[in-house]
Amino acid sequence: MRNFADILMDAIDAKGSRLVVGLDPRIEYIPNDLREPSLKAAGHFCGAAAEMILNFNRIVIDIVSPYVPAVKVQVAFYEAFGSPGYRAYEDTCRYAAEKGLIVIGDVKRSDIGSTAHAYARAHLGVTELEDKVVHHGRAHAMTVTPYFGWEGIEPFLYTAVEFNKGLFVMVRSSNATAHEVQGTQDDPDPLFLRVARKVDEWGRDNIGDRGYSAVGAVVGATYPEDIPRLRELMPRALFLLPGYGAQGANPKDLAGAFDADGHGAVVAASRRIIQAHRTPDNQMWEHAIEQAVQEANADLKAHLPALKT
Amino acid sequence: MRNFADILMDAIDAKGSRLVVGLDPRIEYIPNDLREPSLKAAGHFCGAAAEMILNFNRIVIDIVSPYVPAVKVQVAFYEAFGSPGYRAYEDTCRYAAEKGLIVIGDVKRSDIGSTAHAYARAHLGVTELEDKVVHHGRAHAMTVTPYFGWEGIEPFLYTAVEFNKGLFVMVRSSNATAHEVQGTQDDPDPLFLRVARKVDEWGRDNIGDRGYSAVGAVVGATYPEDIPRLRELMPRALFLLPGYGAQGANPKDLAGAFDADGHGAVVAASRRIIQAHRTPDNQMWEHAIEQAVQEANADLKAHLPALKT
Repeated sequence: MRNFADILMDAIDAKGSRLVVGLDPRIEYIPNDLREPSLKAAGHFCGAAAEMILNFNRIVIDIVSPYVPAVKVQVAFYEAFGSPGYRAYEDTCRYAAEKGLIVIGDVKRSDIGSTAHAYARAHLGVTELEDKVVHHGRAHAMTVTPYFGWEGIEPFLYTAVEFNKGLFVMVRSSNATAHEVQGTQDDPDPLFLRVARKVDEWGRDNIGDRGYSAVGAVVGATYPEDIPRLRELMPRALFLLPGYGAQGANPKDLAGAFDADGHGAVVAASRRIIQAHRTPDNQMWEHAIEQAVQEANADLKAHLPALKT
Repeated sequence: MRNFADILMDAIDAKGSRLVVGLDPRIEYIPNDLREPSLKAAGHFCGAAAEMILNFNRIVIDIVSPYVPAVKVQVAFYEAFGSPGYRAYEDTCRYAAEKGLIVIGDVKRSDIGSTAHAYARAHLGVTELEDKVVHHGRAHAMTVTPYFGWEGIEPFLYTAVEFNKGLFVMVRSSNATAHEVQGTQDDPDPLFLRVARKVDEWGRDNIGDRGYSAVGAVVGATYPEDIPRLRELMPRALFLLPGYGAQGANPKDLAGAFDADGHGAVVAASRRIIQAHRTPDNQMWEHAIEQAVQEANADLKAHLPALKT
């Protein structure tokens, strides 16, 4: 069975890259040549913000799509502009998919039962009105948080399996106070290791042709010391590793997330790529972004286990 | 300082009710007299679904607003219809607030840093475009999940305090497998009690005139045996108690959530109220909903500690 993990791994092979570009647009860093026309046409309203975000993302997607297998779209920065922003989120996901990119909706949703199922339909599945499909979730995978236990995962997984899509369950977040709730390896039975065991269990029935599950894990790249143990507990989970770049993680510390073929994980970077043009150097902003994605790819290639295809 | 807890408690006193009506509209239970015109005008598209949801909510809000202090709007059922659905979520929140109801956005968002801050602005605060406000978060409070520790709460709390709004942190969910991650009282150091201690700590600097914090807690009404211990650990947190009605919680088991004045918690019911018209009895659907909210109020009044105003 060819599952979401196979689809993502095939895209990694095709592009020769394990970099995921985060589309977390800060409105203040949208280049002026996109900002001015939207403000002129729509004024200082949500619609103008949404339009400039979408126009920016389209160009970023055009630039990065030859170089990377996937994008991670952080919905919070779109929700901040209300329903026009939410529309820009959906349009961004659709555009990226049309350009051949795998789309990870970084939405960190969580709930139980029919509510969780509604979120799953929103992002991965379809919603019907009297037996007619009126909404298509545009992401290929979504991030979820694990606080509710199995009943908070099962509705997402059900929809992911039905539409051949994937989940990334938050296991170890990249922030400094993660341990307050998730614990540390020094604790007798830390939550993040318990969740890791659950992720392995939850994904067991959905292993693809290439040996990885449709249920992956978010593992902060800022905690490299936890990676070997997490890999041991979740041998079949693809890891989504945030924290590379702006949050300071070093790619050479991430080797333990990868298998002998150089597979098993993707590394996410957002600010490093989509804010590359903030460094003043007289470059066109499009060129700064293209150069940043090439440099990040080269940096990962130099420090991660080689990708064997 | 008059904080969100004071505002909610004043509304409870004014209505003489501790019931929160959940607006979790299932499209299949929208009454025909609202369904047909939308389908006729807009066809089988998201816009039609969003329109019938909003029209239904407006009537429900008109019916229940004399009887209850607050509504809880579950965003998942709106997101399932994409951006038109998300717009209906925002319009529902705005309409309920205009009708004098406290609006709890049941969005269970969670993230860290600037991402969490974007969510907080989306739901509780404002978003600016070049120093001009282009978006207003319409909820008075939002639900959040605690997996990230303090860095996953602080940006929400910062915005809540700035705009005099509130948070409800998920502590004990109402589902059967909650213990898988949250643990039980029999465990040596269960997560849900650790989170409860954190909620108390996180809310400590934002206590209102009436003694309760702007940081409340979601505590499943289906786990009444946990309520006394949680109240002990979180003496200043307002409890939002889901699970009454369809999920089978009995109000007489919830007494421990309330203080001597009958304050300290609100009880949420959704299906019991907004699907009351599914019971076939020749009533007009509006009347079935009005009767259901009156009955639920009477049931709570009969079994909860008396409200002293």
